[in-house]
Amino acid sequence: MSWAIFGILVSLVSFGVAAYFYYWVKSLPTAEGSISEIGNLIRKGAFTFLSREYRILSIFVGVVSILMLIFFPQPLWKGNILTNLGMVIAYILGSVFSGLAGYIGISIATIANVKAASAAREGLAPSFMAGFRGGAVMGMAVVGTSLFGASILYIFTNDPNIVLAFSFGASSLALFAKAGGGIYTKTADIAADLIGKVELEIPEDDPRNPAVIADNVGDNVGDVAGMGADLFDSNIAAIAAAIVIALPLGQIDLLFCFASLGLLASIIGVLFSKVGENGDPNAALNRGTYITCGIFTVFTLAATLIFNLEFRLWVATIVGMVVGVIIGLTSDYFTGDDKKPVKYVAEASKSGPAFTILSGISYGLLSSLPSLAGIGAASLLAYKICEPLGEGYPVMGISMAAIGMLSIVGMIMSNDAYGPIVDNARGLAEMCGLGDQVLEITDQLDAAGNTSKAITKGFAIGAAGLTVIALLAAFREIVFEYTGELVSFDLMDPLVLFGALIGTVVPAVFSAMLMMGVNRNSQLMVDEIHRQFDTIEGLREGKEGVQPEYEKCIDIATVGAIKELIPAGLTSIIITLIIGFVGGVKAIGGFLSGNILSGLLLAMLMSNAGGLWDNAKKYIEAGNCGGKGSDAHKAAVIGDTVGDPFKDTAGPSINTQITVVSLVSSLAAVLFITYSLF
Amino acid sequence: MSWAIFGILVSLVSFGVAAYFYYWVKSLPTAEGSISEIGNLIRKGAFTFLSREYRILSIFVGVVSILMLIFFPQPLWKGNILTNLGMVIAYILGSVFSGLAGYIGISIATIANVKAASAAREGLAPSFMAGFRGGAVMGMAVVGTSLFGASILYIFTNDPNIVLAFSFGASSLALFAKAGGGIYTKTADIAADLIGKVELEIPEDDPRNPAVIADNVGDNVGDVAGMGADLFDSNIAAIAAAIVIALPLGQIDLLFCFASLGLLASIIGVLFSKVGENGDPNAALNRGTYITCGIFTVFTLAATLIFNLEFRLWVATIVGMVVGVIIGLTSDYFTGDDKKPVKYVAEASKSGPAFTILSGISYGLLSSLPSLAGIGAASLLAYKICEPLGEGYPVMGISMAAIGMLSIVGMIMSNDAYGPIVDNARGLAEMCGLGDQVLEITDQLDAAGNTSKAITKGFAIGAAGLTVIALLAAFREIVFEYTGELVSFDLMDPLVLFGALIGTVVPAVFSAMLMMGVNRNSQLMVDEIHRQFDTIEGLREGKEGVQPEYEKCIDIATVGAIKELIPAGLTSIIITLIIGFVGGVKAIGGFLSGNILSGLLLAMLMSNAGGLWDNAKKYIEAGNCGGKGSDAHKAAVIGDTVGDPFKDTAGPSINTQITVVSLVSSLAAVLFITYSLF
Repeated sequence: MSWAIFGILVSLVSFGVAAYFYYWVKSLPTAEGSISEIGNLIRKGAFTFLSREYRILSIFVGVVSILMLIFFPQPLWKGNILTNLGMVIAYILGSVFSGLAGYIGISIATIANVKAASAAREGLAPSFMAGFRGGAVMGMAVVGTSLFGASILYIFTNDPNIVLAFSFGASSLALFAKAGGGIYTKTADIAADLIGKVELEIPEDDPRNPAVIADNVGDNVGDVAGMGADLFDSNIAAIAAAIVIALPLGQIDLLFCFASLGLLASIIGVLFSKVGENGDPNAALNRGTYITCGIFTVFTLAATLIFNLEFRLWVATIVGMVVGVIIGLTSDYFTGDDKKPVKYVAEASKSGPAFTILSGISYGLLSSLPSLAGIGAASLLAYKICEPLGEGYPVMGISMAAIGMLSIVGMIMSNDAYGPIVDNARGLAEMCGLGDQVLEITDQLDAAGNTSKAITKGFAIGAAGLTVIALLAAFREIVFEYTGELVSFDLMDPLVLFGALIGTVVPAVFSAMLMMGVNRNSQLMVDEIHRQFDTIEGLREGKEGVQPEYEKCIDIATVGAIKELIPAGLTSIIITLIIGFVGGVKAIGGFLSGNILSGLLLAMLMSNAGGLWDNAKKYIEAGNCGGKGSDAHKAAVIGDTVGDPFKDTAGPSINTQITVVSLVSSLAAVLFITYSLF
Repeated sequence: MSWAIFGILVSLVSFGVAAYFYYWVKSLPTAEGSISEIGNLIRKGAFTFLSREYRILSIFVGVVSILMLIFFPQPLWKGNILTNLGMVIAYILGSVFSGLAGYIGISIATIANVKAASAAREGLAPSFMAGFRGGAVMGMAVVGTSLFGASILYIFTNDPNIVLAFSFGASSLALFAKAGGGIYTKTADIAADLIGKVELEIPEDDPRNPAVIADNVGDNVGDVAGMGADLFDSNIAAIAAAIVIALPLGQIDLLFCFASLGLLASIIGVLFSKVGENGDPNAALNRGTYITCGIFTVFTLAATLIFNLEFRLWVATIVGMVVGVIIGLTSDYFTGDDKKPVKYVAEASKSGPAFTILSGISYGLLSSLPSLAGIGAASLLAYKICEPLGEGYPVMGISMAAIGMLSIVGMIMSNDAYGPIVDNARGLAEMCGLGDQVLEITDQLDAAGNTSKAITKGFAIGAAGLTVIALLAAFREIVFEYTGELVSFDLMDPLVLFGALIGTVVPAVFSAMLMMGVNRNSQLMVDEIHRQFDTIEGLREGKEGVQPEYEKCIDIATVGAIKELIPAGLTSIIITLIIGFVGGVKAIGGFLSGNILSGLLLAMLMSNAGGLWDNAKKYIEAGNCGGKGSDAHKAAVIGDTVGDPFKDTAGPSINTQITVVSLVSSLAAVLFITYSLF
């Protein structure tokens, strides 16, 4: 139990660092002029969305709580009301913590954007620090909260099911937050781009564009709050799966030790991340990641040797971490603007948009190879390395590889939240006319944010892959504990196969629903923008004092996203329950596997193709292949628009979707055993 | 053995019908004017491609033959040279028969196109009959040959391995024929459309367009020869898998009985397919399919009762057939121009091409749900229905469901080959100026061809899905025979999981390579067309007597397709061998499963999204959403261009790719057992 207490201590330190950064950022000076006003509009829009989203989600949490109280892990008439009540409390805690993570993220991000824009007047370094430390508040808070929650629940209950319920709370909320935020941000982004760049040919973030504030709100609710909830959920799910597996082996200490040291390494990495006055922000972000990896390796090795922990489990953990870095680097290859794919797609765009789309999708499909091979190799290696330790250990090895891959999640999250903050800062600089020099700096910071975003997304998807494999093992462990039988998910068993076929489809259906949602809403918003340009006199010409009705667009994005997020999220949960009650645990085993396989494939395809199109467009805008305004550029803008919901709505939501169905399956395992049709 | 002889008899009848139709079509009158000349150009282009393709492929077959002689099923120094020699002969026979099927298809299709165009002067009915009976030559020849080959090899050797080698010959050739033909046809189609419809705004098939002959050649080598090789391969693979499984159960007779009755039902269905003077060609095609299903049901039921065959196996067979029809109907829903998806995508196109793409991909992803659920349900039902019969029977049930789904393949193939023939007829009518009335009729026939093509593609993919599941079972059976151990493909086994992750990626990589090939080649062809318009005086204006250099475009398509087909095909085979030699049979089990799951998903996505875009474009051209020339139309053309390689190159090649790797695995099973690393 001592190492779980260590986990609590480290998470308290991370809260301290988060608080320090929060006040550090807040104390930075704000530029004169309209920036406070527009900053407030963004802040208000973000909180309006968040509160409406949370209102809906609290109803959802309420309904699920009642269902859990009655049915989970066993129906009340068969089990014990106290067990069920414990599950419910843990579930509610998980969702509240997850909501809190989103709330903190929005709070700081909507301050840091103004500060980063203001600081850009003094140069790149101060602006970078404002953006990065703002992101780090999120990173520290999210990882600290998840470790804190898992440690404290484990110390008090010693029951892995409770941690699973906590994790389910976190990830069911993350599913909706990611889906809702993703729909919101892309609805606004696409509508703003279509009208601004394509129809009117005015710059991005031009204040005449009625969708421009909604677009900036979207960066916050989609990328900051959504991604925060997502990584919170991945992290906690990895820990929960590891607890289930480690408990019978008596390896809980090692787990909490490594998880805590990961957070500690991230804290140190974040504290020492800096960029020189003429330094490269991209290099600074990457350097931070590598330093964190190094510290984590040294710390865990030292702990293993000093406290005589299982050496092979340490190796498995480091394998996971290394593969995570490799997956991140391949994502960088497929999306980096100095690499072949981006140049090829930009070149192909000269022949028209169809070639932009076809070559982007082709590269996206190819990009799944290194990632899935990496995940396969990591799990195979981790398994084989730990095989000599005896039964149970090989699977624990896979689980620790997931922990290893997520070890540096604090750093990753900080890098990730940095992106939308500087993106917002860029928007503010443009809208408030802070001058060309400021725009240049924020552009540079923004570009670095895009690259690091692609890398961290690859990382997040890879980690989710290993985590759900561990969750599948945890599911089997739960079934074993209840039935005493080690069930086999043999693909030649027709129930497993049936489940696998349906499971394969779920991520496809889920992402289709999200993309359709974006489609529908951005068409609505485009109509609204046309209406404003047609009816508000002087808006098109940019007449002094004439302002668009920003709130109307914010409202469309908010209402639309709220309406779409529930069906998309619920569908996957309901299909899981149907498969479980029809085909039982074997079908669920296949179902989860199919889900993992196609989910990883689609997630890599969408994230990387989306990132690729975005950067191909930027590459052309930098003056290549005809430059801005050329036919190639128009084609690339279309590619980017297709890529928007790919990379920011559907793609990154898929890993949350996989995690949620895995957790639902584990929680409902006993029900499936008892009541399934086959 | 008696029923295998019955199989030979029925296939002889089908050859007779094919010969009758061949001469019937050939004896139809040909219109005056340039039609013979242009028809000959197309015919020459198709045969040129075919002979160059076959020359390359014969080298491939030669190399594989030598490798097989040395290594398959066991290395020479361990096994028996006669066994290996038998395998080689069967392999060569399979590839020769497959090549022959393509050759016959091209021979008749390049006659029937001219005849159908000529007959259209007399009305819809005669033109339909020319197209349909031309297609039926292909249908009868392909299915007859596959049944003939399987029956005769089985009678003479009684060795399922020999039939597997025959099947491998057929499908490795099909892989290249499908990939090569698919690249060829879309290279020409895209280039012709981009220049013709988008840049110059001249009608489809305008004789000024240098790519127009290549486009028509493409219909033949891609859709006729490619699809023929594909269905030949699916059919033979289903029979081969069923033989492996049925042999230990003593159920070979039932298998040959049902397979033969399927061909017989198709013969009757084809003979009675007619359309009235003002009839609907679409209804005629569908009616033929349903009649064939009905006859097959009655015949097999009668045979089951009279010859006292296993009733439950009959039910499993019919389940397969019914699910095939259901999958076909859902494909029709997602691609039919009177259904919601097509209308929605057409409507979305008004907001720009990005929405065309996004909504099309979304529907494509959704369309995988009914198909995969259908395949899952069919295999689960077939398994459960046959479970009471004892061990081995449940898997035989799945295998018979595949046979059931493919029972009417003779009819399906006839419908399918009808499509490119009337498409070509339309092109000839336009190029040779046969008048508006003829164009109207061929347009109507062409539209019916498009719908039936979508349905049959759904059918083909579904059947391939069940077949490869049966092949997976056959693979396990072969391993069992050699090792005496019934290996389990448990997804919690890290080798299986590793294989599954890599297997998931293979169809993605394969289709990406094909699409990149189309991309590259059509850009080359576009450049060539620009060159011709720039240098040949009077071409753009359509000056009397000025002709484009058609051969140049034909040459680009031919050379390009030949260059691309080998790497794409080889990659999947080589990855299979690597996985097998690294991870052994367990990894292969996972590998094949991953392949099936993601392959089915991607195949449905690509086929249906492609068909949907094509029909959305046609729907707009019919005067909806702004009609021809509107922004919506331009967006839909871009969607259609993206859809072209989706639906005609990558999508339908995936099932061949899955079949090939399954067969390679079965053939190399003993090698994997003996020499694998893990």
